[in-house]
Amino acid sequence: MSIYEQNLGRTPANHVPLSPVSFLTRSAGIYPNRVAVIHGERRYTYAQFAERCRRLASALQSAGIGKGDTVAIMAPNTPEMLEAHYAVPMLGAVLCSINTRLDAAAIGFILAHSEAKAVLVDREFATAVQQALPEPPLLVVDIADALTPLGPAIGTIDYESFIAGGDPNHPIELPDDEWQAIALGYTSGTTGNPKGVVAHHRGAYLNACANALTFGLSPKSVYLWTLPMFHCNGWTYTWAVTLAGGTHVCLRRVEPAPIFAAIAEHGVTHMCGAPVVLSILIHAPPETRRPLPHTVQIATGGAAPPSAVIAGMEAMGFAVTHLYGLTETFGPATVCLWQPGLDEMPLDDKSAFMARQGVATPMLQEAAVMDPETMTKLPADGTSMGELMLRGNTVMKGYLKNPTATEDAFAGGWFHSGDLAVMHPDGYVEIKDRAKDIIISGGENISSLEIEEVLYKHPAVMEAAVVARPDEKWGETPQAFVTLKPGAEATAEDIVAWCRARMAHFKAPRHIAFGPLPKTSTGKIQKFELRERARRR
Amino acid sequence: MSIYEQNLGRTPANHVPLSPVSFLTRSAGIYPNRVAVIHGERRYTYAQFAERCRRLASALQSAGIGKGDTVAIMAPNTPEMLEAHYAVPMLGAVLCSINTRLDAAAIGFILAHSEAKAVLVDREFATAVQQALPEPPLLVVDIADALTPLGPAIGTIDYESFIAGGDPNHPIELPDDEWQAIALGYTSGTTGNPKGVVAHHRGAYLNACANALTFGLSPKSVYLWTLPMFHCNGWTYTWAVTLAGGTHVCLRRVEPAPIFAAIAEHGVTHMCGAPVVLSILIHAPPETRRPLPHTVQIATGGAAPPSAVIAGMEAMGFAVTHLYGLTETFGPATVCLWQPGLDEMPLDDKSAFMARQGVATPMLQEAAVMDPETMTKLPADGTSMGELMLRGNTVMKGYLKNPTATEDAFAGGWFHSGDLAVMHPDGYVEIKDRAKDIIISGGENISSLEIEEVLYKHPAVMEAAVVARPDEKWGETPQAFVTLKPGAEATAEDIVAWCRARMAHFKAPRHIAFGPLPKTSTGKIQKFELRERARRR
Repeated sequence: MSIYEQNLGRTPANHVPLSPVSFLTRSAGIYPNRVAVIHGERRYTYAQFAERCRRLASALQSAGIGKGDTVAIMAPNTPEMLEAHYAVPMLGAVLCSINTRLDAAAIGFILAHSEAKAVLVDREFATAVQQALPEPPLLVVDIADALTPLGPAIGTIDYESFIAGGDPNHPIELPDDEWQAIALGYTSGTTGNPKGVVAHHRGAYLNACANALTFGLSPKSVYLWTLPMFHCNGWTYTWAVTLAGGTHVCLRRVEPAPIFAAIAEHGVTHMCGAPVVLSILIHAPPETRRPLPHTVQIATGGAAPPSAVIAGMEAMGFAVTHLYGLTETFGPATVCLWQPGLDEMPLDDKSAFMARQGVATPMLQEAAVMDPETMTKLPADGTSMGELMLRGNTVMKGYLKNPTATEDAFAGGWFHSGDLAVMHPDGYVEIKDRAKDIIISGGENISSLEIEEVLYKHPAVMEAAVVARPDEKWGETPQAFVTLKPGAEATAEDIVAWCRARMAHFKAPRHIAFGPLPKTSTGKIQKFELRERARRR
Repeated sequence: MSIYEQNLGRTPANHVPLSPVSFLTRSAGIYPNRVAVIHGERRYTYAQFAERCRRLASALQSAGIGKGDTVAIMAPNTPEMLEAHYAVPMLGAVLCSINTRLDAAAIGFILAHSEAKAVLVDREFATAVQQALPEPPLLVVDIADALTPLGPAIGTIDYESFIAGGDPNHPIELPDDEWQAIALGYTSGTTGNPKGVVAHHRGAYLNACANALTFGLSPKSVYLWTLPMFHCNGWTYTWAVTLAGGTHVCLRRVEPAPIFAAIAEHGVTHMCGAPVVLSILIHAPPETRRPLPHTVQIATGGAAPPSAVIAGMEAMGFAVTHLYGLTETFGPATVCLWQPGLDEMPLDDKSAFMARQGVATPMLQEAAVMDPETMTKLPADGTSMGELMLRGNTVMKGYLKNPTATEDAFAGGWFHSGDLAVMHPDGYVEIKDRAKDIIISGGENISSLEIEEVLYKHPAVMEAAVVARPDEKWGETPQAFVTLKPGAEATAEDIVAWCRARMAHFKAPRHIAFGPLPKTSTGKIQKFELRERARRR
């Protein structure tokens, strides 16, 4: 045995489980009087925020919640949602944040599958949850937010009464082991039942650090909640902002007027959101706009920001960063990092660069493009397409009660993202398509993203999505779905001609459909729905 | 068993040992063409830096170095020293950086106690190492730096020839377990033989993250090496700067002209150093000074910066941060964090605030002031004095081959710092004295630091230190040792009167001795030597 292994084991003095719960202890200690949370007229300092979290933990514990139990929550971006992100993990319990756009059937599936012992419900969403409640009944706590019209009270107790009964000095405890589950998030699931992604304390801690490092969060940061907290725990910003000692600005709805108002009034420095958030801001009615007090960092993911979106955002004073990740990777796994010279690039080159998903975040070990059959890395030549694979400490524990899906996802020691990508010679990854979104026409692969990028450059196009349409001769051909900008006009022929002038003819869509696009609650266009439409035509 | 523990174990896809070796892999991948290291006319990009590290690891491996072996290095802040910080841990071996001011006897003790299998020696220090080499001989590699007159070649091979024989594609491997030792640092040891502090990969990784977060390191950061890398691995900045993708600017000697030149020419953004570094800059001859291109962040530790030092540094364009830590805590453990309003404070109030050691760094779990007998926390009232205790993941594994010292240091689940401190109501720690530096006069505790703070405010005083002097009547009385500023004059009577006007008379020193102060290689005043002098008088 090496001399370094003799009498040098772990002790309570030098080894503590990594958990984002620690961030609350530290910021409450250091910044007791700084504003931690803003919501409408409500303000909680870090001391008050910590006390509310302790009370909630204590009240849940008194109700029988403990280690390994699931606590569900159905709420928009409110203080209660943030509080649950600390109180539930403090007990060793697991927080399951439910997508607020789900219907009763989907909610019912999640409550049953997660074996939830309690659910906290914002009363705006009470009706759907009420229909979903299982037998025997579980603990239901009603959240009554003064900022919204209230739905019915369906629980046994109101949130404020519930936490009033909790101990304000309940200890902020760490898990026994950093590998313990901290959160459960259900993927939107384009087919069949959703999968429950289990996050661990270690990864939550490290991804929060990675976010704070990558975006330069500091005690002066003011973070606006334009990203749903139910979406991978708000990409772990629920914890990262607290780590930095910054201020959380809550927001129930993504609408331009309250966003511009919050930025101007609270001095927002950072925010995140799906591309739809950026579109909403760019196309905001003039009367809702207010000048930005300084450059605001906005991180976006889920799809590459088209050049028009980057230009529009920068013109307003935002600095856009493109991220990529999945629920399985605690949100951000790669980031299209700034490189010297990027600021001076012409917009088209810059947006082409920024369309890349980029490089591994600081705490992810590695992002690679591999052949999923042989599990070997493909050349970093910008053209060899393979599956984007990820590995490191910011990857989930696995899928709840689904060992087969877990094994498949981790086959060969890497997490299989399901996205098809190339690795550029500079080490930046660029996703060409979801494996299932690729269009195979006459044996040739056509990237739906490549066509969408051309469509987004058309002056009349606000949003676009391309899917495969079954074709007797070619097997599949691309079909485009397009939403025009308010007041803009364009015919299908115009748009087909625009595409044919800018890409190989076999790639250009032959069919264009106009109208609003179906979207998930996180702003992702629902391609499975569009594929259905293309099939029915 | 909870549903969250079923089929959700660690896999290579979702669990990787935390090690700062990962930072090199990532930055070499993302920033291959960015300058990683500057030394005189030498420049290494991140790709070149990584290649040199791989070659060194490969050459050491070929020489028989492997997991758990100690590799010593005696070198100032050069590229080779940085390379050793990656190459040695890549092999699972342990880097022992030797203080370059040690004599042959101390070096010999370290080489023997650490069971070093190899030593890399900068030829400036060859003579002392040669005298210290044990029998049977170990592998000795000579580093010949063109920036300094060379001492004798005492090894079997020159560093550049050694790494030229190494494989440029040697894999950058992680340790089997993040709890493995990464580095060994010997404390300066005021009595008896020094103790070998064993650092682990997990703590090195996390403290580097904490430094990057606290000081806002980014890819644009340029870090000047005014702190010795042999001192707690440069407070883990050896790894933190690489994590951020910043540039390391090497420096063999702390002298004003090359420091001001490096700042001006390379656009230095961050640096660290003992208070002596700040003094050197403040008292720099006018012809060596050059204007700073922008505000330069400088972190200092080892002693609180006196108000005159803060004012002098700020006048030159530096922003000073006060840190506290020990070799046992990977360097920085607490930081006197900025608080709103600090910038606007009058200088005296500001320097009084900045004299505090502050709050736990983001990755240390907790800093507390406790009664070491009962292990209970003392009130945070700014007056109850107890021992500063620390716990968390950035605390050492323990002392090498010294289980008794390790047990004592970790008694009760906390690392005992040996410093006497109070906790202010705002949660900031302030050290009043080393346990052994307190003066007990007529049964009253007198803080030597309190007297020193008053002495430093005297316009003629450049440096000051106070220790206990044996006294028949009082037991002990304070004795001051003072160095005057160049050209300044003051008598012992002047200085005694200055102190009596500013503190309780029983605290004021009665005896003043003038002359240069004995210092450790890291710039700390050697109080044990002064205590000897006070005893002999």
